[in-house]
Amino acid sequence: MTKPIKIVFIGAGNVAWSLAPALDILPNVEVVQVVARSVESARTVTNRLSRAVASSSLMDIDTSADLYVIAVGDSQVGTVARQLSGINNGAIWVHTSGSVLLEVLSPLGDNIGVFYPMQTFSKGRQVDIRKVPFFIEGMRPEVAASLECLASQVSDSVSILSGDDRMVLHAAAVFACNFTNHLLAISSDILSSRGISLEVMKTLVEESVDKAFSSGPDNGQTGPARRGDISTINRHAELIGPPYSELYKTLSNSIINRFKDWSR
Amino acid sequence: MTKPIKIVFIGAGNVAWSLAPALDILPNVEVVQVVARSVESARTVTNRLSRAVASSSLMDIDTSADLYVIAVGDSQVGTVARQLSGINNGAIWVHTSGSVLLEVLSPLGDNIGVFYPMQTFSKGRQVDIRKVPFFIEGMRPEVAASLECLASQVSDSVSILSGDDRMVLHAAAVFACNFTNHLLAISSDILSSRGISLEVMKTLVEESVDKAFSSGPDNGQTGPARRGDISTINRHAELIGPPYSELYKTLSNSIINRFKDWSR
Repeated sequence: MTKPIKIVFIGAGNVAWSLAPALDILPNVEVVQVVARSVESARTVTNRLSRAVASSSLMDIDTSADLYVIAVGDSQVGTVARQLSGINNGAIWVHTSGSVLLEVLSPLGDNIGVFYPMQTFSKGRQVDIRKVPFFIEGMRPEVAASLECLASQVSDSVSILSGDDRMVLHAAAVFACNFTNHLLAISSDILSSRGISLEVMKTLVEESVDKAFSSGPDNGQTGPARRGDISTINRHAELIGPPYSELYKTLSNSIINRFKDWSR
Repeated sequence: MTKPIKIVFIGAGNVAWSLAPALDILPNVEVVQVVARSVESARTVTNRLSRAVASSSLMDIDTSADLYVIAVGDSQVGTVARQLSGINNGAIWVHTSGSVLLEVLSPLGDNIGVFYPMQTFSKGRQVDIRKVPFFIEGMRPEVAASLECLASQVSDSVSILSGDDRMVLHAAAVFACNFTNHLLAISSDILSSRGISLEVMKTLVEESVDKAFSSGPDNGQTGPARRGDISTINRHAELIGPPYSELYKTLSNSIINRFKDWSR
Protein backbone atom coordinates (compact mmCIF):
# COMPACT_ATOMS: atom_id res chain seq x y z
CA MET A 1 0.00 0.00 0.00
CA THR A 2 1.33 3.45 -0.95
CA LYS A 3 1.54 6.26 1.53
CA PRO A 4 -1.29 8.80 1.24
CA ILE A 5 -0.64 12.18 -0.35
CA LYS A 6 -0.51 14.74 2.43
CA ILE A 7 -2.06 18.11 1.55
CA VAL A 8 -1.95 21.47 3.34
CA PHE A 9 -4.48 24.18 2.44
CA ILE A 10 -3.49 27.80 2.86
CA GLY A 11 -6.68 29.85 3.00
CA ALA A 12 -10.12 28.94 4.31
CA GLY A 13 -12.38 30.78 1.87
CA ASN A 14 -15.01 29.55 -0.56
CA VAL A 15 -12.58 27.50 -2.66
CA ALA A 16 -10.97 25.71 0.30
CA TRP A 17 -14.39 25.08 1.86
CA SER A 18 -15.54 23.29 -1.30
CA LEU A 19 -12.33 21.72 -2.58
CA ALA A 20 -10.60 20.43 0.58
CA PRO A 21 -13.38 17.93 1.50
CA ALA A 22 -13.51 16.61 -2.08
CA LEU A 23 -9.78 15.80 -1.86
CA ASP A 24 -9.82 14.63 1.76
CA ILE A 25 -12.41 11.98 1.00
CA LEU A 26 -10.14 10.26 -1.55
CA PRO A 27 -8.66 7.02 -0.18
CA ASN A 28 -5.07 7.98 -1.02
CA VAL A 29 -5.27 11.58 0.17
CA GLU A 30 -5.13 13.19 3.57
CA VAL A 31 -5.63 16.91 4.13
CA VAL A 32 -3.45 17.38 7.19
CA GLN A 33 -3.73 21.11 7.87
CA VAL A 34 -5.64 24.27 7.01
CA VAL A 35 -3.83 27.54 7.67
CA ALA A 36 -5.94 30.70 7.74
CA ARG A 37 -5.87 34.15 9.32
CA SER A 38 -7.62 32.84 12.40
CA VAL A 39 -8.12 29.40 13.90
CA GLU A 40 -11.91 29.99 13.81
CA SER A 41 -11.77 30.62 10.09
CA ALA A 42 -9.54 27.57 9.51
CA ARG A 43 -12.00 25.46 11.52
CA THR A 44 -14.86 26.28 9.11
CA VAL A 45 -12.90 24.08 6.72
CA THR A 46 -11.27 21.52 9.06
CA ASN A 47 -14.74 20.79 10.48
CA ARG A 48 -15.49 19.28 7.10
CA LEU A 49 -12.33 17.13 7.05
CA SER A 50 -11.44 13.88 8.75
CA ARG A 51 -8.35 14.86 10.77
CA ALA A 52 -6.86 18.15 9.55
CA VAL A 53 -5.38 20.60 12.04
CA ALA A 54 -6.55 24.23 12.02
CA SER A 55 -3.72 26.80 12.26
CA SER A 56 -3.59 30.57 12.21
CA SER A 57 0.02 31.24 11.24
CA LEU A 58 2.20 30.40 8.29
CA MET A 59 4.97 29.93 10.89
CA ASP A 60 3.18 26.78 12.06
CA ILE A 61 2.90 25.25 8.60
CA ASP A 62 3.41 21.49 8.39
CA THR A 63 6.58 21.10 6.34
CA SER A 64 6.10 17.38 5.73
CA ALA A 65 3.28 17.66 3.17
CA ASP A 66 3.43 16.59 -0.47
CA LEU A 67 1.16 19.27 -1.85
CA TYR A 68 0.41 22.82 -0.72
CA VAL A 69 -2.78 24.41 -2.06
CA ILE A 70 -2.72 28.19 -1.83
CA ALA A 71 -6.40 29.10 -1.96
CA VAL A 72 -6.29 32.75 -0.91
CA GLY A 73 -7.48 35.94 -2.61
CA ASP A 74 -5.79 36.61 -5.96
CA SER A 75 -3.89 39.61 -4.61
CA GLN A 76 -2.48 37.54 -1.70
CA VAL A 77 -1.02 34.64 -3.67
CA GLY A 78 2.32 36.36 -4.29
CA THR A 79 2.68 37.47 -0.69
CA VAL A 80 2.05 33.95 0.61
CA ALA A 81 4.53 32.51 -1.90
CA ARG A 82 7.26 34.87 -0.73
CA GLN A 83 6.54 34.19 2.93
CA LEU A 84 6.86 30.42 2.42
CA SER A 85 9.87 30.52 0.10
CA GLY A 86 12.17 29.21 2.84
CA ILE A 87 10.56 25.78 2.80
CA ASN A 88 12.39 23.56 0.38
CA ASN A 89 11.02 20.08 0.88
CA GLY A 90 10.43 18.97 -2.71
CA ALA A 91 6.65 19.32 -2.39
CA ILE A 92 4.36 20.67 -5.12
CA TRP A 93 2.86 24.15 -4.65
CA VAL A 94 -0.27 25.25 -6.45
CA HIS A 95 -2.72 28.11 -6.46
CA THR A 96 -6.38 27.73 -7.43
CA SER A 97 -7.03 30.97 -9.30
CA GLY A 98 -8.24 31.56 -12.84
CA SER A 99 -6.51 34.89 -13.09
CA VAL A 100 -3.15 34.58 -11.31
CA LEU A 101 -0.09 33.68 -13.37
CA LEU A 102 1.82 30.53 -12.43
CA GLU A 103 5.01 32.61 -12.24
CA VAL A 104 3.69 34.34 -9.12
CA LEU A 105 4.64 31.11 -7.31
CA SER A 106 8.28 31.26 -8.53
CA PRO A 107 9.70 32.08 -5.05
CA LEU A 108 8.71 28.50 -4.17
CA GLY A 109 10.93 26.88 -6.80
CA ASP A 110 9.91 25.01 -9.92
CA ASN A 111 7.63 22.35 -8.47
CA ILE A 112 4.79 24.77 -8.94
CA GLY A 113 1.45 24.59 -10.70
CA VAL A 114 -2.12 25.77 -11.02
CA PHE A 115 -5.11 23.75 -9.86
CA TYR A 116 -8.10 25.82 -11.01
CA PRO A 117 -11.61 24.48 -10.45
CA MET A 118 -13.85 26.66 -12.64
CA GLN A 119 -16.92 27.15 -10.51
CA THR A 120 -18.56 29.82 -8.39
CA PHE A 121 -18.11 28.53 -4.86
CA SER A 122 -19.86 29.80 -1.75
CA LYS A 123 -19.42 28.50 1.77
CA GLY A 124 -22.43 26.53 2.88
CA ARG A 125 -23.44 25.65 -0.67
CA GLN A 126 -22.70 22.10 -1.78
CA VAL A 127 -21.44 21.72 -5.34
CA ASP A 128 -21.00 18.46 -7.24
CA ILE A 129 -17.22 18.65 -7.73
CA ARG A 130 -17.35 15.77 -10.19
CA LYS A 131 -19.02 18.10 -12.72
CA VAL A 132 -16.64 21.02 -12.15
CA PRO A 133 -14.06 21.44 -14.94
CA PHE A 134 -10.50 21.61 -13.59
CA PHE A 135 -7.73 23.39 -15.47
CA ILE A 136 -4.17 22.41 -14.71
CA GLU A 137 -0.84 24.03 -15.40
CA GLY A 138 2.60 22.90 -14.27
CA MET A 139 5.99 24.58 -14.44
CA ARG A 140 7.40 21.12 -15.21
CA PRO A 141 5.57 18.36 -17.13
CA GLU A 142 5.86 15.97 -14.14
CA VAL A 143 4.09 18.51 -11.96
CA ALA A 144 1.31 18.93 -14.50
CA ALA A 145 0.96 15.14 -14.75
CA SER A 146 0.71 14.71 -10.95
CA LEU A 147 -1.88 17.45 -10.66
CA GLU A 148 -3.85 16.09 -13.61
CA CYS A 149 -3.94 12.68 -11.96
CA LEU A 150 -5.16 14.13 -8.67
CA ALA A 151 -7.83 16.31 -10.34
CA SER A 152 -9.08 13.32 -12.34
CA GLN A 153 -9.92 11.59 -9.08
CA VAL A 154 -12.39 14.32 -8.11
CA SER A 155 -13.68 15.58 -11.46
CA ASP A 156 -14.82 14.14 -14.79
CA SER A 157 -13.42 17.11 -16.69
CA VAL A 158 -9.71 17.88 -16.36
CA SER A 159 -7.63 19.77 -18.93
CA ILE A 160 -4.10 21.04 -19.07
CA LEU A 161 -4.17 24.68 -20.12
CA SER A 162 -1.50 27.34 -20.59
CA GLY A 163 -1.58 30.39 -18.35
CA ASP A 164 -2.49 32.60 -21.26
CA ASP A 165 -5.43 30.41 -22.26
CA ARG A 166 -6.53 30.21 -18.62
CA MET A 167 -6.75 34.01 -18.47
CA VAL A 168 -8.94 34.00 -21.57
CA LEU A 169 -11.07 31.22 -20.10
CA HIS A 170 -11.46 33.22 -16.92
CA ALA A 171 -12.52 36.32 -18.86
CA ALA A 172 -15.13 34.21 -20.66
CA ALA A 173 -16.30 32.85 -17.31
CA VAL A 174 -16.74 36.39 -16.00
CA PHE A 175 -19.14 37.08 -18.90
CA ALA A 176 -21.01 33.81 -18.45
CA CYS A 177 -21.19 33.83 -14.66
CA ASN A 178 -20.49 37.13 -12.87
CA PHE A 179 -22.05 39.38 -15.52
CA THR A 180 -25.05 37.10 -15.94
CA ASN A 181 -25.53 37.20 -12.20
CA HIS A 182 -25.36 41.00 -12.32
CA LEU A 183 -28.10 41.08 -14.97
CA LEU A 184 -30.28 38.98 -12.67
CA ALA A 185 -29.62 41.47 -9.86
CA ILE A 186 -30.74 44.32 -12.13
CA SER A 187 -33.77 42.35 -13.27
CA SER A 188 -34.63 41.80 -9.62
CA ASP A 189 -34.37 45.56 -8.92
CA ILE A 190 -36.64 46.42 -11.84
CA LEU A 191 -39.23 43.85 -10.76
CA SER A 192 -39.17 44.88 -7.12
CA SER A 193 -40.07 48.45 -8.16
CA ARG A 194 -43.45 46.90 -9.05
CA GLY A 195 -43.62 44.51 -6.13
CA ILE A 196 -42.79 41.48 -8.28
CA SER A 197 -40.33 38.82 -7.11
CA LEU A 198 -37.37 37.65 -9.23
CA GLU A 199 -38.77 34.15 -8.76
CA VAL A 200 -41.17 34.87 -11.64
CA MET A 201 -38.14 34.82 -14.01
CA LYS A 202 -36.89 31.38 -12.98
CA THR A 203 -38.56 29.33 -15.72
CA LEU A 204 -37.60 31.87 -18.37
CA VAL A 205 -33.95 32.05 -17.35
CA GLU A 206 -33.55 28.30 -17.01
CA GLU A 207 -35.10 27.70 -20.43
CA SER A 208 -32.98 30.45 -21.93
CA VAL A 209 -29.75 28.95 -20.54
CA ASP A 210 -30.78 25.45 -21.53
CA LYS A 211 -31.55 26.59 -25.06
CA ALA A 212 -28.25 28.50 -25.32
CA PHE A 213 -26.28 25.37 -24.46
CA SER A 214 -28.26 23.03 -26.66
CA SER A 215 -28.73 25.16 -29.82
CA GLY A 216 -26.11 27.89 -29.38
CA PRO A 217 -26.87 31.33 -27.92
CA ASP A 218 -27.14 33.16 -31.25
CA ASN A 219 -29.68 30.74 -32.68
CA GLY A 220 -31.97 31.13 -29.70
CA GLN A 221 -31.75 34.90 -29.36
CA THR A 222 -35.12 36.68 -29.20
CA GLY A 223 -36.37 40.03 -27.90
CA PRO A 224 -36.59 43.66 -29.00
CA ALA A 225 -32.90 44.12 -29.90
CA ARG A 226 -32.83 40.94 -31.96
CA ARG A 227 -35.87 42.24 -33.87
CA GLY A 228 -34.32 45.70 -34.21
CA ASP A 229 -37.39 47.08 -32.43
CA ILE A 230 -36.05 50.52 -31.51
CA SER A 231 -39.34 51.87 -30.18
CA THR A 232 -39.61 49.10 -27.58
CA ILE A 233 -35.94 49.58 -26.66
CA ASN A 234 -36.51 53.29 -26.06
CA ARG A 235 -39.71 52.68 -24.10
CA HIS A 236 -37.94 50.12 -21.90
CA ALA A 237 -34.98 52.42 -21.28
CA GLU A 238 -37.35 55.19 -20.24
CA LEU A 239 -39.30 52.91 -17.89
CA ILE A 240 -36.13 51.56 -16.27
CA GLY A 241 -34.54 54.97 -15.70
CA PRO A 242 -31.07 55.50 -14.22
CA PRO A 243 -28.74 53.89 -13.34
CA TYR A 244 -29.57 50.89 -15.54
CA SER A 245 -31.24 52.51 -18.56
CA GLU A 246 -27.82 53.22 -20.10
CA LEU A 247 -26.76 49.62 -19.65
CA TYR A 248 -30.03 48.51 -21.26
CA LYS A 249 -29.20 50.63 -24.33
CA THR A 250 -25.57 49.51 -24.45
CA LEU A 251 -26.50 45.84 -24.35
CA SER A 252 -29.30 46.33 -26.88
CA ASN A 253 -26.88 48.04 -29.27
CA SER A 254 -24.40 45.25 -28.74
CA ILE A 255 -27.04 42.71 -29.80
CA ILE A 256 -28.09 44.85 -32.79
CA ASN A 257 -24.45 45.10 -33.92
CA ARG A 258 -23.93 41.39 -33.49
CA PHE A 259 -26.83 40.57 -35.79
CA LYS A 260 -26.66 43.45 -38.26
CA ASP A 261 -24.88 41.36 -40.85
CA TRP A 262 -27.11 38.33 -40.37
CA SER A 263 -30.17 37.74 -42.45
CA ARG A 264 -33.20 37.48 -40.17
CA MET B 1 -72.11 19.49 -21.48
CA THR B 2 -71.01 23.00 -22.44
CA LYS B 3 -69.96 23.89 -25.95
CA PRO B 4 -66.18 24.07 -26.42
CA ILE B 5 -64.44 27.44 -26.66
CA LYS B 6 -63.48 27.95 -30.30
CA ILE B 7 -60.13 29.70 -30.82
CA VAL B 8 -58.53 31.20 -33.92
CA PHE B 9 -54.79 31.94 -33.96
CA ILE B 10 -53.53 34.74 -36.16
CA GLY B 11 -49.82 34.17 -36.69
CA ALA B 12 -47.83 30.96 -36.86
CA GLY B 13 -44.57 31.97 -35.21
CA ASN B 14 -42.81 30.71 -32.11
CA VAL B 15 -45.61 31.72 -29.73
CA ALA B 16 -48.41 30.13 -31.75
CA TRP B 17 -46.32 26.99 -32.28
CA SER B 18 -45.95 26.55 -28.51
CA LEU B 19 -49.21 27.97 -27.19
CA ALA B 20 -51.84 26.68 -29.64
CA PRO B 21 -51.25 22.97 -28.86
CA ALA B 22 -51.36 23.65 -25.10
CA LEU B 23 -54.82 25.18 -25.52
CA ASP B 24 -56.06 22.73 -28.14
CA ILE B 25 -55.44 19.78 -25.84
CA LEU B 26 -57.83 21.14 -23.20
CA PRO B 27 -61.14 19.20 -23.16
CA ASN B 28 -63.29 22.34 -23.45
CA VAL B 29 -61.20 24.09 -26.10
CA GLU B 30 -60.91 23.69 -29.83
CA VAL B 31 -58.42 25.63 -31.93
CA VAL B 32 -60.37 25.83 -35.19
CA GLN B 33 -58.07 27.85 -37.44
CA VAL B 34 -54.56 29.24 -37.82
CA VAL B 35 -54.18 32.19 -40.18
CA ALA B 36 -50.67 33.03 -41.34
CA ARG B 37 -48.94 34.67 -44.30
CA SER B 38 -48.80 31.36 -46.13
CA VAL B 39 -50.67 28.07 -45.80
CA GLU B 40 -47.32 26.29 -45.37
CA SER B 41 -46.46 28.48 -42.44
CA ALA B 42 -49.92 28.01 -40.88
CA ARG B 43 -49.53 24.24 -41.30
CA THR B 44 -46.39 24.21 -39.10
CA VAL B 45 -48.86 24.98 -36.31
CA THR B 46 -52.02 23.15 -37.46
CA ASN B 47 -49.92 19.97 -37.81
CA ARG B 48 -49.68 20.06 -34.04
CA LEU B 49 -53.45 20.51 -33.54
CA SER B 50 -56.34 18.08 -33.68
CA ARG B 51 -58.53 19.63 -36.38
CA ALA B 52 -57.59 23.26 -37.05
CA VAL B 53 -57.72 24.64 -40.59
CA ALA B 54 -54.65 26.40 -42.05
CA SER B 55 -55.43 29.66 -43.87
CA SER B 56 -53.31 32.27 -45.57
CA SER B 57 -55.63 35.28 -45.62
CA LEU B 58 -57.38 37.34 -42.99
CA MET B 59 -60.28 37.48 -45.50
CA ASP B 60 -60.88 33.78 -44.80
CA ILE B 61 -61.01 34.17 -41.03
CA ASP B 62 -63.58 32.03 -39.22
CA THR B 63 -66.01 34.58 -37.75
CA SER B 64 -67.72 32.09 -35.44
CA ALA B 65 -64.90 31.78 -32.89
CA ASP B 66 -65.07 32.81 -29.22
CA LEU B 67 -61.46 33.92 -28.87
CA TYR B 68 -58.97 35.33 -31.36
CA VAL B 69 -55.30 35.13 -30.41
CA ILE B 70 -53.16 37.60 -32.34
CA ALA B 71 -49.68 36.10 -32.06
CA VAL B 72 -47.82 38.13 -34.65
CA GLY B 73 -44.72 40.33 -34.44
CA ASP B 74 -45.14 43.31 -32.10
CA SER B 75 -45.10 45.80 -34.96
CA GLN B 76 -47.89 43.91 -36.79
CA VAL B 77 -50.45 43.74 -33.95
CA GLY B 78 -51.99 47.13 -34.72
CA THR B 79 -52.20 46.42 -38.46
CA VAL B 80 -53.96 43.12 -37.88
CA ALA B 81 -56.37 44.77 -35.43
CA ARG B 82 -57.34 47.40 -37.96
CA GLN B 83 -57.76 44.84 -40.75
CA LEU B 84 -60.12 42.76 -38.62
CA SER B 85 -62.09 45.64 -37.13
CA GLY B 86 -65.13 44.88 -39.30
CA ILE B 87 -65.85 41.65 -37.44
CA ASN B 88 -68.20 42.34 -34.60
CA ASN B 89 -69.23 38.98 -33.24
CA GLY B 90 -68.87 39.52 -29.48
CA ALA B 91 -65.70 37.40 -29.31
CA ILE B 92 -62.67 38.22 -27.17
CA TRP B 93 -59.52 39.44 -28.93
CA VAL B 94 -56.10 39.19 -27.36
CA HIS B 95 -52.48 39.66 -28.26
CA THR B 96 -49.63 37.71 -26.65
CA SER B 97 -46.93 40.33 -26.39
CA GLY B 98 -45.04 41.63 -23.38
CA SER B 99 -44.42 44.99 -24.95
CA VAL B 100 -47.56 45.94 -26.91
CA LEU B 101 -50.19 48.08 -25.20
CA LEU B 102 -53.70 46.67 -24.88
CA GLU B 103 -55.04 49.83 -26.51
CA VAL B 104 -53.47 48.80 -29.82
CA LEU B 105 -56.39 46.37 -30.08
CA SER B 106 -59.00 49.16 -29.67
CA PRO B 107 -60.22 48.96 -33.31
CA LEU B 108 -61.68 45.58 -32.30
CA GLY B 109 -63.96 46.99 -29.59
CA ASP B 110 -63.74 46.58 -25.85
CA ASN B 111 -63.74 42.78 -25.54
CA ILE B 112 -59.98 42.97 -25.78
CA GLY B 113 -57.17 41.71 -23.62
CA VAL B 114 -53.60 40.53 -23.30
CA PHE B 115 -52.59 36.89 -22.90
CA TYR B 116 -48.82 37.05 -22.35
CA PRO B 117 -46.89 33.84 -21.69
CA MET B 118 -43.50 34.97 -20.38
CA GLN B 119 -41.11 32.53 -21.98
CA THR B 120 -38.59 32.38 -24.81
CA PHE B 121 -40.27 30.17 -27.37
CA SER B 122 -38.64 28.57 -30.39
CA LYS B 123 -40.29 26.35 -32.95
CA GLY B 124 -39.23 22.76 -32.52
CA ARG B 125 -38.39 23.19 -28.86
CA GLN B 126 -40.89 21.76 -26.38
CA VAL B 127 -41.54 23.88 -23.31
CA ASP B 128 -43.50 22.83 -20.23
CA ILE B 129 -46.30 25.41 -20.49
CA ARG B 130 -47.51 24.54 -17.00
CA LYS B 131 -44.41 26.27 -15.58
CA VAL B 132 -44.68 29.35 -17.81
CA PRO B 133 -46.02 32.42 -15.97
CA PHE B 134 -48.97 34.00 -17.80
CA PHE B 135 -49.81 37.68 -17.41
CA ILE B 136 -53.34 38.76 -18.22
CA GLU B 137 -54.93 42.11 -18.88
CA GLY B 138 -58.51 42.86 -19.91
CA MET B 139 -60.17 46.06 -21.08
CA ARG B 140 -63.20 44.95 -19.03
CA PRO B 141 -63.06 42.88 -15.81
CA GLU B 142 -65.18 40.10 -17.37
CA VAL B 143 -62.63 39.75 -20.17
CA ALA B 144 -59.77 39.55 -17.69
CA ALA B 145 -61.68 36.93 -15.67
CA SER B 146 -62.34 34.76 -18.75
CA LEU B 147 -58.72 34.93 -19.84
CA GLU B 148 -57.48 34.22 -16.32
CA CYS B 149 -59.68 31.14 -16.19
CA LEU B 150 -58.39 29.88 -19.55
CA ALA B 151 -54.73 30.54 -18.66
CA SER B 152 -55.16 28.72 -15.34
CA GLN B 153 -56.04 25.58 -17.26
CA VAL B 154 -52.63 25.52 -18.96
CA SER B 155 -50.33 27.14 -16.39
CA ASP B 156 -49.73 27.01 -12.65
CA SER B 157 -48.80 30.70 -12.56
CA VAL B 158 -51.35 33.23 -13.80
CA SER B 159 -51.46 36.89 -12.76
CA ILE B 160 -53.50 39.89 -13.79
CA LEU B 161 -51.15 42.75 -14.52
CA SER B 162 -51.63 46.30 -15.75
CA GLY B 163 -50.14 47.27 -19.10
CA ASP B 164 -47.66 49.54 -17.42
CA ASP B 165 -46.44 46.80 -15.06
CA ARG B 166 -46.27 44.37 -17.96
CA MET B 167 -43.89 46.71 -19.81
CA VAL B 168 -41.66 46.84 -16.74
CA LEU B 169 -41.83 43.07 -16.40
CA HIS B 170 -40.86 42.72 -20.04
CA ALA B 171 -37.89 45.05 -19.59
CA ALA B 172 -36.78 42.94 -16.62
CA ALA B 173 -37.18 39.81 -18.74
CA VAL B 174 -34.95 41.32 -21.43
CA PHE B 175 -32.18 41.69 -18.83
CA ALA B 176 -32.69 38.21 -17.42
CA CYS B 177 -33.14 36.38 -20.72
CA ASN B 178 -32.04 38.17 -23.91
CA PHE B 179 -29.07 39.97 -22.37
CA THR B 180 -27.95 36.87 -20.47
CA ASN B 181 -28.12 34.96 -23.71
CA HIS B 182 -26.01 37.65 -25.39
CA LEU B 183 -23.36 37.30 -22.66
CA LEU B 184 -23.23 33.57 -23.35
CA ALA B 185 -22.75 34.34 -27.04
CA ILE B 186 -19.82 36.62 -26.19
CA SER B 187 -18.39 34.05 -23.81
CA SER B 188 -18.60 31.51 -26.61
CA ASP B 189 -16.72 33.85 -28.98
CA ILE B 190 -13.95 34.42 -26.45
CA LEU B 191 -13.58 30.69 -25.82
CA SER B 192 -13.60 29.75 -29.48
CA SER B 193 -10.64 32.09 -30.05
CA ARG B 194 -8.70 29.49 -28.02
CA GLY B 195 -10.46 26.45 -29.45
CA ILE B 196 -12.54 25.88 -26.32
CA SER B 197 -16.24 25.01 -26.51
CA LEU B 198 -18.92 26.94 -24.61
CA GLU B 199 -19.95 23.57 -23.18
CA VAL B 200 -17.17 23.95 -20.62
CA MET B 201 -19.22 26.78 -19.00
CA LYS B 202 -22.40 24.75 -18.54
CA THR B 203 -21.84 23.66 -14.93
CA LEU B 204 -20.67 27.13 -13.93
CA VAL B 205 -23.64 28.93 -15.49
CA GLU B 206 -26.20 26.49 -14.14
CA GLU B 207 -24.77 26.75 -10.63
CA SER B 208 -24.61 30.52 -10.92
CA VAL B 209 -28.27 30.79 -11.96
CA ASP B 210 -29.34 28.30 -9.33
CA LYS B 211 -27.49 30.22 -6.64
CA ALA B 212 -28.95 33.55 -7.81
CA PHE B 213 -32.49 32.23 -7.45
CA SER B 214 -31.92 30.49 -4.14
CA SER B 215 -29.80 33.09 -2.27
CA GLY B 216 -30.35 36.27 -4.31
CA PRO B 217 -27.97 37.44 -7.06
CA ASP B 218 -26.15 40.04 -4.93
CA ASN B 219 -25.32 37.57 -2.17
CA GLY B 220 -23.75 35.14 -4.58
CA GLN B 221 -21.77 37.63 -6.66
CA THR B 222 -18.08 36.76 -7.06
CA GLY B 223 -15.35 37.67 -9.54
CA PRO B 224 -12.85 40.47 -10.20
CA ALA B 225 -15.35 43.36 -10.22
CA ARG B 226 -16.95 42.22 -6.96
CA ARG B 227 -13.46 42.17 -5.39
CA GLY B 228 -12.61 45.55 -6.94
CA ASP B 229 -9.65 43.86 -8.63
CA ILE B 230 -8.83 46.53 -11.23
CA SER B 231 -5.64 44.89 -12.48
CA THR B 232 -7.48 41.68 -13.44
CA ILE B 233 -10.26 43.73 -15.05
CA ASN B 234 -7.73 45.60 -17.18
CA ARG B 235 -5.85 42.42 -18.10
CA HIS B 236 -9.12 40.73 -19.14
CA ALA B 237 -10.23 43.73 -21.21
CA GLU B 238 -6.88 43.70 -23.02
CA LEU B 239 -7.05 39.97 -23.70
CA ILE B 240 -10.63 40.20 -25.02
CA GLY B 241 -9.99 43.14 -27.32
CA PRO B 242 -12.67 44.86 -29.42
CA PRO B 243 -15.60 44.73 -29.83
CA TYR B 244 -16.35 43.25 -26.41
CA SER B 245 -13.58 44.73 -24.22
CA GLU B 246 -15.63 47.93 -23.77
CA LEU B 247 -18.66 45.93 -22.67
CA TYR B 248 -16.45 44.02 -20.24
CA LYS B 249 -15.37 47.32 -18.66
CA THR B 250 -18.89 48.75 -18.64
CA LEU B 251 -20.33 45.70 -16.88
CA SER B 252 -17.40 45.56 -14.44
CA ASN B 253 -17.93 49.21 -13.54
CA SER B 254 -21.63 48.56 -13.11
CA ILE B 255 -20.85 45.80 -10.59
CA ILE B 256 -18.28 47.98 -8.80
CA ASN B 257 -20.84 50.80 -8.51
CA ARG B 258 -23.50 48.42 -7.27
CA PHE B 259 -21.31 47.22 -4.41
CA LYS B 260 -19.39 50.38 -3.60
CA ASP B 261 -21.61 51.23 -0.65
CA TRP B 262 -21.69 47.65 0.65
CA SER B 263 -19.25 46.41 3.22
CA ARG B 264 -17.36 43.42 1.84
